Amino acid sequence: MKAVQYVRFGEPVEVREIEKPVPGPGEILLRITAAGVCHSDIAVQQMPKEIIDRSYNLPLTLGHEPVGVVAELGPGAGDEFAVGDAVVVYGPWGCGTCHACSGGAENYCTESARLGIRPPGLGTPGALAEYMIVDSARHLVPIGDLDPVQAAPLADAALTPYHAIKKAMHKLGAGSVAVVIGAGGLGHMAIRLLKLLTPATVVALDVDPVKLELAKRVGADHTFLSNDDAIEPIRALNGGKGADVVFDIVGVQPAVELGAKLLGMESVFRLIGVADGALPVGIFTVPFGAEVGTSYWGTRQELIEVIEMARRGLLPVETTTYSLDEGPEVYARFFRNEIVGRAVVVP
Amino acid sequence: MKAVQYVRFGEPVEVREIEKPVPGPGEILLRITAAGVCHSDIAVQQMPKEIIDRSYNLPLTLGHEPVGVVAELGPGAGDEFAVGDAVVVYGPWGCGTCHACSGGAENYCTESARLGIRPPGLGTPGALAEYMIVDSARHLVPIGDLDPVQAAPLADAALTPYHAIKKAMHKLGAGSVAVVIGAGGLGHMAIRLLKLLTPATVVALDVDPVKLELAKRVGADHTFLSNDDAIEPIRALNGGKGADVVFDIVGVQPAVELGAKLLGMESVFRLIGVADGALPVGIFTVPFGAEVGTSYWGTRQELIEVIEMARRGLLPVETTTYSLDEGPEVYARFFRNEIVGRAVVVP
Amino acid sequence: MKAVQYVRFGEPVEVREIEKPVPGPGEILLRITAAGVCHSDIAVQQMPKEIIDRSYNLPLTLGHEPVGVVAELGPGAGDEFAVGDAVVVYGPWGCGTCHACSGGAENYCTESARLGIRPPGLGTPGALAEYMIVDSARHLVPIGDLDPVQAAPLADAALTPYHAIKKAMHKLGAGSVAVVIGAGGLGHMAIRLLKLLTPATVVALDVDPVKLELAKRVGADHTFLSNDDAIEPIRALNGGKGADVVFDIVGVQPAVELGAKLLGMESVFRLIGVADGALPVGIFTVPFGAEVGTSYWGTRQELIEVIEMARRGLLPVETTTYSLDEGPEVYARFFRNEIVGRAVVVP
Amino acid sequence: MKAVQYVRFGEPVEVREIEKPVPGPGEILLRITAAGVCHSDIAVQQMPKEIIDRSYNLPLTLGHEPVGVVAELGPGAGDEFAVGDAVVVYGPWGCGTCHACSGGAENYCTESARLGIRPPGLGTPGALAEYMIVDSARHLVPIGDLDPVQAAPLADAALTPYHAIKKAMHKLGAGSVAVVIGAGGLGHMAIRLLKLLTPATVVALDVDPVKLELAKRVGADHTFLSNDDAIEPIRALNGGKGADVVFDIVGVQPAVELGAKLLGMESVFRLIGVADGALPVGIFTVPFGAEVGTSYWGTRQELIEVIEMARRGLLPVETTTYSLDEGPEVYARFFRNEIVGRAVVVP
Repeated sequence: MKAVQYVRFGEPVEVREIEKPVPGPGEILLRITAAGVCHSDIAVQQMPKEIIDRSYNLPLTLGHEPVGVVAELGPGAGDEFAVGDAVVVYGPWGCGTCHACSGGAENYCTESARLGIRPPGLGTPGALAEYMIVDSARHLVPIGDLDPVQAAPLADAALTPYHAIKKAMHKLGAGSVAVVIGAGGLGHMAIRLLKLLTPATVVALDVDPVKLELAKRVGADHTFLSNDDAIEPIRALNGGKGADVVFDIVGVQPAVELGAKLLGMESVFRLIGVADGALPVGIFTVPFGAEVGTSYWGTRQELIEVIEMARRGLLPVETTTYSLDEGPEVYARFFRNEIVGRAVVVP
Repeated sequence: MKAVQYVRFGEPVEVREIEKPVPGPGEILLRITAAGVCHSDIAVQQMPKEIIDRSYNLPLTLGHEPVGVVAELGPGAGDEFAVGDAVVVYGPWGCGTCHACSGGAENYCTESARLGIRPPGLGTPGALAEYMIVDSARHLVPIGDLDPVQAAPLADAALTPYHAIKKAMHKLGAGSVAVVIGAGGLGHMAIRLLKLLTPATVVALDVDPVKLELAKRVGADHTFLSNDDAIEPIRALNGGKGADVVFDIVGVQPAVELGAKLLGMESVFRLIGVADGALPVGIFTVPFGAEVGTSYWGTRQELIEVIEMARRGLLPVETTTYSLDEGPEVYARFFRNEIVGRAVVVP
Repeated sequence: MKAVQYVRFGEPVEVREIEKPVPGPGEILLRITAAGVCHSDIAVQQMPKEIIDRSYNLPLTLGHEPVGVVAELGPGAGDEFAVGDAVVVYGPWGCGTCHACSGGAENYCTESARLGIRPPGLGTPGALAEYMIVDSARHLVPIGDLDPVQAAPLADAALTPYHAIKKAMHKLGAGSVAVVIGAGGLGHMAIRLLKLLTPATVVALDVDPVKLELAKRVGADHTFLSNDDAIEPIRALNGGKGADVVFDIVGVQPAVELGAKLLGMESVFRLIGVADGALPVGIFTVPFGAEVGTSYWGTRQELIEVIEMARRGLLPVETTTYSLDEGPEVYARFFRNEIVGRAVVVP
Repeated sequence: MKAVQYVRFGEPVEVREIEKPVPGPGEILLRITAAGVCHSDIAVQQMPKEIIDRSYNLPLTLGHEPVGVVAELGPGAGDEFAVGDAVVVYGPWGCGTCHACSGGAENYCTESARLGIRPPGLGTPGALAEYMIVDSARHLVPIGDLDPVQAAPLADAALTPYHAIKKAMHKLGAGSVAVVIGAGGLGHMAIRLLKLLTPATVVALDVDPVKLELAKRVGADHTFLSNDDAIEPIRALNGGKGADVVFDIVGVQPAVELGAKLLGMESVFRLIGVADGALPVGIFTVPFGAEVGTSYWGTRQELIEVIEMARRGLLPVETTTYSLDEGPEVYARFFRNEIVGRAVVVP
């Protein structure tokens, strides 16, 4: 079968012919019907060699937003799913039994690193292929008759901001101001979700005017080019108090620093974008009561909720579709910052 | 009357004779019966001149842990309190009507800076004096027959860690590990409060073995000298997962950096000590889901709760008492790091 | 001045000429610009004589949704407000200093009953008059240039459901089903608020098809006549799981019993309407984990939030205006169940 | 092997010789080392015939607090556990994939009724036997070297009140009053947990002075015979405000009614005991803001936490041990209300 792989450290991804996998005990084989392509794959392709060697198992089939149809059940894979079921894959696989996993937060599994458990497309063979192995039925969520192209980005581009928003709901009440830095794949879904879930005034920042148009289209109340000129008008929105929540979906140092200047007292700053920016947090560097932290992917329960919202028609994604053969070209466009909304590969 | 004042920038505090104040409309005059002395007054005495000139109104009577007896009510001061009532003063005065103040969180008032409202002892005349003016009845909490010397430290040394703990309660469940950096005035109360309010395993760190003895005495499960040798045994407490919450009551850079090395996934780091340390927070610098932020004083409702716990005998404070004349000596001992527990001045 | 009063037990309200009040110490005189008329005034007019004698101080000027302009400040009334300021009155007056009041929840003041503190229009002279006394500046919230007719209903018809919704937000996530019983003054605002604040599917029930039309207009996803025929289609919305939250704004026994049949596991049932219905709660009478309780008015902070949403144009109210002279007629229509949306008196 | 079974409707339980079970695909066989005996088995023995016929699958091996050692793994049972591991069984089995189960709350599974999934000892063969089948590795929690007799009651007698307490933690802060009605197996653990987890003043009620002695021993601050004479002294504890939380672990009508009279404003009433009492909840029957509801067992994550507390020595259980042959006698003593603390059967 065909697969888009990161084959050798430092070299561009390739489309290769590999063997179709066979599900082992407890495993499930999916025939992929759609797979979202994510900017964090670019971060992977820029990681240092020792990290790649330690955790990414080259040649690696990329793709961590898999949607497919159950093609075959390994022995003992349970009776929750049957051949033909349409499903989305929950990506941040954990051990399933630690304290975090017991509460459904496999994204914060404390044992996965020790056990060498890696998400599909990020160390384990991923979704940019004709078939893919899922290790357990608990990592599947039924999507019913949802369009696979619409469903795929929900696995990360919607789930990740949804998780970050849910953890900040207490700050996103009436009269609040939320800032989203970066209106790309995750960012445009963050904006949509904020408008759907909260009464916050939503401000979008991006360095690219084309992305700001998308931001407006999906509901942003205000958009600004991502630079210091945005600070004053944003602070003017609530009499100078500053933003209640900043979601930084870019994560580079200029984005982090701009976000920091927008914070108000008791605000929340969430770093989501995988990049190397960092914000020094101290008594004299951020407003009283401000909380700065990272947010990683989401829980299986949250994925169920995201799918449910999409099935009610509340969560359309801006997508462009590509074939597997176009996979390398999609990444090339990412490097050139030319992707608007979400790119989805349809094998 | 006598008052301990910070008179001139850069010079030691002095005991001076000043005029007894008269309560204006809405104000209340207290005869001070006890006043705690806090390390943050040291931070004030080390602040740069422009900050002092802007906000601290020298000569400034210090002392922001006031306990006293109502001596006189200004016109229109209401009927909540009567002459002779024993009260503690809620210190972080706010405007009283903004969104934060309406919810009782005057410590996060968004208008006080603009309006020039300053806490007693930190810009407004404070408690290290025979008498003191309180601007409004809403800043008083009755203490009943609680010993004034025990009550005074509750206004900050207990209230401040209590507030930080309450905001982190969701992380301080069964099986959790809490680390307190700094076992001084606030720190020893943080330890007591953690043992009283949570089932967390409580670890205390300090550079001073004498303070670690106090930490043990007030309930710390484990104590360590505050250096990198403590990391391994602390991480061993829960199989390497790391602390759930770190309260940094020191705030200098070495303390912040040590605290950062103790964090686990989805943990909370709270900077409380007024010092210039800062922790760079980014995707690659702290564990997934960790939240780093500052915490400032507490709410009036929390002060009521602290007083209530003390009245039930649950919250004894380690105190040493001094006279007003000994005020300058107390600060000198603070500079030499010789104060164990809380120093309380009894006029 | 003119006032609409409940003069004698058991008799209809009257328009009377009474003396214009003078603000005492700490008090503020408002010139009323709009006053909402609420169904709970009907409940008052149906209360037994001993309750009326004990708490309602006849002759009582009705009206607990007051909007006005500051006309005069009593001595010591503070400097938060100036003559000419447009304000709405926060109604559930409390003592201001107990634990609940300290957190801003005067609606749950534990001392008001003992102290004889009564809300305006519900024991203290209310808003259906040309002028009204407010006991303290803390019971006013500025409305800026908001239309007084739109602002008045926010004081109760929006604040009360808003408070109930906020306390149930954890149940109103993606995929949830919320049921509102009663689409009148409070009910239609409950529907609007649910759509604004949550992604819940909102179901409205009423015995009157005209009210169901209003429910649709303000955003209800589904509407049903309030009887047992509604149960099956409502349960079908989420595969039989039942509602996540039921807000009963009617409160009579048939409404309570219908609501009970709609509950799912871990659901919330909130009785808001002032009537004598009651739901027996036991292991075998409600689903596992269901919580049944009452909700009373709201907090001052929540009123600020409601006003803020209205100022952003998010919270239009369906209103019909009347003169003071028409006050008795408004109540007569209430008794005949002819009021749609909110009736507002403009003196 | 031997098993204690409810054999025929309406007849006493018997010790019988039955076949040792064999684990099927995904299942795990435990050799039972201890099994707690619970009062709710009495409720089962008093249920009407149609419920027993529908859900309890007689002859039914009783016992829903199983502790054992892994004896055999069925095919595909995973590698989380190995033969010889000491484990406790998580009892409220759910489907594992619905929204509730995905968050770890199998106790509120919305599909188990439809799928006919029943807890061990409550429809599926239970723990009062030499061996027992567990359907999935996810229903086991390792107990390490914890004494099996101490561990068994944690599965329900500790987990159930722990769950109820965790959901009421926001009401159990400083200065709060918690009432526990019923100081038996669950009740005495509720008291211990409240003292361990909260600063609440804990009041215990029981009709049996012997149980009140146990209540005192495990930490109750105040104990009273369970009748109306207790109301006044309990209300006096906080100036008449009433209890913040009432845990009714008995559930019969007199207990429910007494509990209702103790409630304060914004309080929480949790029915836990399986009996047919019910409390009518309406605007005029409970204080403003009070919430009345049921609570059922707990989550797997909470069981991990309970085990962790026990392993730290924080959660000793009062136990009396019996042999399997004494099983019928244990139930007879339950009927005579003679069991103090928890009865544990050791095969």
